[in-house]
Amino acid sequence: MNNFSFHNPTQILFGKGTIPQIGEEIARRGEKKVLLLAGSGSIKQNGVYDQTVQSLEAAGIARVECWGVQANPVLSKVREAIDLCRAEGVDAVLAVGGGSVLDSAKAVACGFYLNDVWAAYEKTEAITKALPLYTILTLSATGSEMNMFSVLTKPEEHKKWAIGHPSLYPVLSIVDPAVQTSLPWRQTVCGGVDSLSHIMEFYFIGKPTDTTVAVNTAVSRTIIEAVDQLQREPGDYDSRASLAWGSTLALNGISGCGLNFGEWSTHQLEHAVSAHHPDVAHAEGLAVLFPAWIEYCEAANPDTFAHWAQAVWDSNGVADGIDAFRDRLRQWEAPVSLADLGVKREEIPAIADTAMLTQPLGSLRPLSREDVVNILEIAANAS
Amino acid sequence: MNNFSFHNPTQILFGKGTIPQIGEEIARRGEKKVLLLAGSGSIKQNGVYDQTVQSLEAAGIARVECWGVQANPVLSKVREAIDLCRAEGVDAVLAVGGGSVLDSAKAVACGFYLNDVWAAYEKTEAITKALPLYTILTLSATGSEMNMFSVLTKPEEHKKWAIGHPSLYPVLSIVDPAVQTSLPWRQTVCGGVDSLSHIMEFYFIGKPTDTTVAVNTAVSRTIIEAVDQLQREPGDYDSRASLAWGSTLALNGISGCGLNFGEWSTHQLEHAVSAHHPDVAHAEGLAVLFPAWIEYCEAANPDTFAHWAQAVWDSNGVADGIDAFRDRLRQWEAPVSLADLGVKREEIPAIADTAMLTQPLGSLRPLSREDVVNILEIAANAS
Repeated sequence: MNNFSFHNPTQILFGKGTIPQIGEEIARRGEKKVLLLAGSGSIKQNGVYDQTVQSLEAAGIARVECWGVQANPVLSKVREAIDLCRAEGVDAVLAVGGGSVLDSAKAVACGFYLNDVWAAYEKTEAITKALPLYTILTLSATGSEMNMFSVLTKPEEHKKWAIGHPSLYPVLSIVDPAVQTSLPWRQTVCGGVDSLSHIMEFYFIGKPTDTTVAVNTAVSRTIIEAVDQLQREPGDYDSRASLAWGSTLALNGISGCGLNFGEWSTHQLEHAVSAHHPDVAHAEGLAVLFPAWIEYCEAANPDTFAHWAQAVWDSNGVADGIDAFRDRLRQWEAPVSLADLGVKREEIPAIADTAMLTQPLGSLRPLSREDVVNILEIAANAS
Repeated sequence: MNNFSFHNPTQILFGKGTIPQIGEEIARRGEKKVLLLAGSGSIKQNGVYDQTVQSLEAAGIARVECWGVQANPVLSKVREAIDLCRAEGVDAVLAVGGGSVLDSAKAVACGFYLNDVWAAYEKTEAITKALPLYTILTLSATGSEMNMFSVLTKPEEHKKWAIGHPSLYPVLSIVDPAVQTSLPWRQTVCGGVDSLSHIMEFYFIGKPTDTTVAVNTAVSRTIIEAVDQLQREPGDYDSRASLAWGSTLALNGISGCGLNFGEWSTHQLEHAVSAHHPDVAHAEGLAVLFPAWIEYCEAANPDTFAHWAQAVWDSNGVADGIDAFRDRLRQWEAPVSLADLGVKREEIPAIADTAMLTQPLGSLRPLSREDVVNILEIAANAS
C-alpha cells in the first residue's frame, strides 16, 4: 500500500426527511445570510425548495437567490453569482441541487475572495480561502457534496477544468435519497456511471490485496446492484440510499486511500469531449470512454485489471470484464460509442488537441496525443 | 438504510516513514509544549521514541513525558498524567503507543478541564472541551486513532467504562505500519480480532444490501487475509498496512453509516469479563464472546447473520459461519472458550452482575441478566 494522507472535515446528514435541519445547522455556526444557488427549477417541483426555504426562515437566516446553473456549469453564471454575493454581503453559500450546482457554488465560494475566479481554474491565481459552503444534494453523482473539487466550463474557449482546495470542503451536506426517487431514469444511470467512474479512477493504481481496492470493489458492486434494482423499481428507497452513499464514498477520499491521487485521464478525456460537445452529459462521456481506456491501458497493471474484472463483474479476464461492463451500460440504456454521443470520428483530432492542453495526462500510463487518438478510436469503434 | 450523521475531522498520515512529520504538524497548528504519554517502553526498542523526540525537538516543541500506561489502562495513571499537564502547563497531548495509550490520552485531554475525570466515565460530569490530541499509533486494534471514544478501567471497583465526545477526535494521527512488523504474533492477532469485532458490532444491524454492510464485508475479509498472511510472514509490510487501515476503518464511523450506533453488547460483556480479570486482553475476551453472542442473537436479524456467514466466511448458514470463525481463531492461536481465558464457570454470575451495571445492554436484541448468563454459558462450553 502506498502512503497517504486522509482528511475530510465535511459533516454529512444522510437520510429521509433531513432537509428541514438545514436552517438550524447554518444558524448554529453563526451565519446570518446565504446565497441560495440553484439550477433550473426542479427543486420547486420536488418540494426541496419549499423545505429549504421554510427551514432557513424558521432559523432566521436571510437569503438571496441565484437560479439557472446548468449541466456542465459555466463560468458566466459563477461570475453573476459572485457579483451578487458581493453586492448583498452574504456570509455563506448554500447550494441546492446536483453536482453542477455544488461545483458552481464552490467556484463562487472561493471566487468571492479572488480577483478572477477563472484564473484559479487556469492555475494563475491561488485559492487561499472561501466562504463557508453548505449543500443540499438532489442528485448523487459527482461526489461534490463531500470533497474539495469543482469542475467548470468556459464554453467559448472549449475549456473544462478542475480546481481543488481544502477550503472547498462543504461544512455540511445534506443527502436525502428520498428526493431522488422521482429522478428520470437517464439521470439515475448517469449518477451510477459517474460514481463507478470515480472509483475506477483510483482502482487500477492499487494491488488486489489493498484494503482500499476491496472497499472499492464492494462500493462498485453496491452501486451496480442499486442501479439494476432502480431500473426495476425506480421508487425503491433503500436502493436510492445505497446508490447515494456509494456515490459519496466514491469520491470523498476513502476510495483513494493508498492509491496516490488516482489516475483521472479518462475524466480529462471526457472533459475534452464535452468541451467540444457541451450537450454531452459528463457521465455519458465517461460511459463511452472508460471501457476504451481500460482496454488500452490494461497492460500497465494487469493483476489489478484482472482482479477488477473478476471481483466487480464476475468475469474471467479483462476483455470479458469490459464486455460485461458494456453489456450493463446497454442494459441501462447508456451510450457505449462516440457515435451514441453524437461525436463524429473526424472530430477526434480536435478533441485530442484539447485533451493535451491539460498536463500531466495519465499517471498509471502517461498518455501521448497518439495514445489519446487511439483510445478515442476504440471508443468510436465500440458497439 | 437508516438515517445517519457522519463527521470525522481527524487527519490521518499513513505509511512508511511518516513519524518524523509529527513535530512540524504540531508546530504548524501553534502548539508549543506537549505531554508525551507512553506505555511500558517498547517504543524505545523499535525506534519510534527516537524518531518522535527528534522530530519534536527539530520543530521546537517542548515536552514533558509520562510513562507506564498499561493494557486495560487504569484511572490512576490518567490522574497522574492530568496532574502533570496542569503542573507543566502543556497545551496539547501526544500519545505514542497502542490503543491503551491513546484511550488514556483522551481521558487526560478532557480530564484536564474536568473536576473529576472518572465522573465523565460515570456520566455524572459532562465533557465540554479537551486539549488538542495528537497520536502516533504503534499497534492497530482499537481504532482510537480516528474516533472520539475512550475506555478506562477502575480496577478497585471492577469497572471498565467508555466515554465519547467530539472534542476527543485526534487532530492528527500518524499510522506507520512498518513499526508494527516486529509485533509479537499474539498482539497481531489481538489487533485483527479487535478490528473484526468493531465491524461486527455494526454489521448485524444492517440489511444485506446496505452499502455499509458491503464495505464492512470487504474490510473484514481484508483483515482476515492480512492476519493469515502475517502468520506466514510477520514482516510483510503490505499485510501490516492492510490490517492497519482496515483497523482504522473498522471504527472511524465509516463502518457504522446507516447502522445506527451499532450493537456493542459483546463489548459490554467483555468489559465485564476483564473488569474481573484485568489480565484478559480485550481482544481475547472478544474472541471468546463474539461467536457466543452471534449464536444467541442470530434470530434477531437472520438474513444479515446468514449474509455475514456467506460473505465473510464463505459458509452456508450462521452455524457454519460461527464454526469457520472459531476455526480461524484456533488457527491464529486465539482463545475460544472462557476456560482459555482463565475464567471459571462459577464466576459467571458475578460477571453477569457487572455486565448489567451498564444499561442499556443490547440494541438488536436487548439482553436481560438471564440472557447474559446464557451467552456466557455458550462461551464456557465452546471448544
